[in-house]
Amino acid sequence: MATPARFDIVAIGNAIVDVIARADDALIEAEAMVKGSMRLIDAAEATRLYDAMGPGVEMSGGSAANTLAGMAALGRRCAFIGQVADDQLGQVFTHDLTSLGVAFGTPPLAGGDPTARCLIFVTPDGQRTMNTFLGASQNLGLASLDPELIGDADILYLEGYLWNADASRAAMADAIRLARAAGRRVAFTLSDSFVIAAHRDDFDRMIAAREIDILFANEAELLELAQEQDFDAALARVAGGVPLLVVTRSEKGAVAVTGGERTTVAAEPIDHVVDTTGAGDLFAAGFLSGLAEGRALADCLTMGAVCAREIIAQVGPRAQTDLRTLVAARLG
Amino acid sequence: MATPARFDIVAIGNAIVDVIARADDALIEAEAMVKGSMRLIDAAEATRLYDAMGPGVEMSGGSAANTLAGMAALGRRCAFIGQVADDQLGQVFTHDLTSLGVAFGTPPLAGGDPTARCLIFVTPDGQRTMNTFLGASQNLGLASLDPELIGDADILYLEGYLWNADASRAAMADAIRLARAAGRRVAFTLSDSFVIAAHRDDFDRMIAAREIDILFANEAELLELAQEQDFDAALARVAGGVPLLVVTRSEKGAVAVTGGERTTVAAEPIDHVVDTTGAGDLFAAGFLSGLAEGRALADCLTMGAVCAREIIAQVGPRAQTDLRTLVAARLG
Repeated sequence: MATPARFDIVAIGNAIVDVIARADDALIEAEAMVKGSMRLIDAAEATRLYDAMGPGVEMSGGSAANTLAGMAALGRRCAFIGQVADDQLGQVFTHDLTSLGVAFGTPPLAGGDPTARCLIFVTPDGQRTMNTFLGASQNLGLASLDPELIGDADILYLEGYLWNADASRAAMADAIRLARAAGRRVAFTLSDSFVIAAHRDDFDRMIAAREIDILFANEAELLELAQEQDFDAALARVAGGVPLLVVTRSEKGAVAVTGGERTTVAAEPIDHVVDTTGAGDLFAAGFLSGLAEGRALADCLTMGAVCAREIIAQVGPRAQTDLRTLVAARLG
Repeated sequence: MATPARFDIVAIGNAIVDVIARADDALIEAEAMVKGSMRLIDAAEATRLYDAMGPGVEMSGGSAANTLAGMAALGRRCAFIGQVADDQLGQVFTHDLTSLGVAFGTPPLAGGDPTARCLIFVTPDGQRTMNTFLGASQNLGLASLDPELIGDADILYLEGYLWNADASRAAMADAIRLARAAGRRVAFTLSDSFVIAAHRDDFDRMIAAREIDILFANEAELLELAQEQDFDAALARVAGGVPLLVVTRSEKGAVAVTGGERTTVAAEPIDHVVDTTGAGDLFAAGFLSGLAEGRALADCLTMGAVCAREIIAQVGPRAQTDLRTLVAARLG
């Protein structure tokens, strides 16, 4: 039995500043990007692509960090572990997270790679296509983990993107071990279909070893992980391996499966999708906040849907409105 | 008689990256800020105030640079002179301006002050209160000026904020001399009431010496410059000293005075003011673009009003919509 924890959640993720610019479909095609997905780029490609990009807006991002920003706005006690460099973008990232009340003390790395950035092209349909230069964040290693902190949070939340770099991937086994040793739950978001394709064996092993208590996926990721083409079959297969499975389905809503039972909610209505950046991250924020508050699964799903709806009605992955008021208006 | 110029305009201004965050009125009061105005802060105060600030969005700014961004979006040929440092924010500023097609070649300064930033607090009424750390931009001096470039633009556009630092203030006399020698016109925006109060003698002298062909002011700045309390009296007094005076009056519209004749337009209708940052800058962009296109003054004013309306309906001082389409829809 675990002792009461100081934090509702500690998340480990890539510490990234987003550079967001509008783009037309022709540019996505000319650059051979896969619309709606994320790809990794090196420093030279980041420079070339930035030159080809229109004027941008910079905003702190990173999948797991976005989720924490949402949870902190909803009043949860949050801590983050991630690697920035000792540079201006690192200061921006740190400021934005800590100003929300998220505990963040991973020491910045000096003299190496600059802070990670993600060049995000938003097309007129609101879809976002991401190009990530991992920079300092790929150096998140065992030394960056804070064992005491991991032991002192009810949930350890990990993003699949961490599997993209050797150091961070290797460190995650230790993070899970530390959480387990403290009797904490482990939540995991699959992040991206390409990540699953590249690290399927590892993910399958983690699930088989019961290392994951709560698994987040969108529809494409679920199908990729299950290697199925039928949604229901994929849902049944993956749900068999995790105590709680949460799947987001864009305009089709979301579903949670636990103990063989499905709970579904519809998507929240929206007039116009501005920018889908952060939709999944904020869904997780709403869902996990509901869970921390001891709410029923249907309400947790609704909280996720309310937060996701809000984030796709604005530019960028961090909410510029008061999420708590929105949730209260919807659920009380 | 001047030879045909390569650029419609060359602007000199502070090269600044804005950090924009929402704030309530209590914070403005607690920090003893004057709502709606700009004040200068040093490096230590910039750090302290940033710590007190909520999560931000970073976007390139600077008054004259914002005007050029708008003019470039409207299809004008623009060049900028301003001082950034050799750092990440300097790269962001340079990228955002050049990606719009604005020529910008002032070499960055290495090893000194970092790139300027402006901490902008946006209150629920949409008003913006600015705290500027001048950083590298205060080192804009004579050596940063490009005489050939200044001689090769129809209009030299200067912002009053340049008078805030000794080096940039001193350099402006040379900039005006260079433009005059090439037979070009000089446009000047007063920027801020505090700037006028501090440098009234210099501005009076410039006007008396007929160094300014086009003068931009808002209502408060006009009253401050004229040292009058009555708008009409102030307008008449200042208009007597400049060939073309353009005054913006927020929701009361705008007026241009030339040869003793007044032309007025109403403000463009708007449902909800989101953020007034850049309103005056974008008004100047629309007006000067109209002038460059050889339009009548009434149409120039309307172009200014259309651009100003667009910028206060969004967050930040750089338009995220297609200004050219908006102007075409309004004026053809």
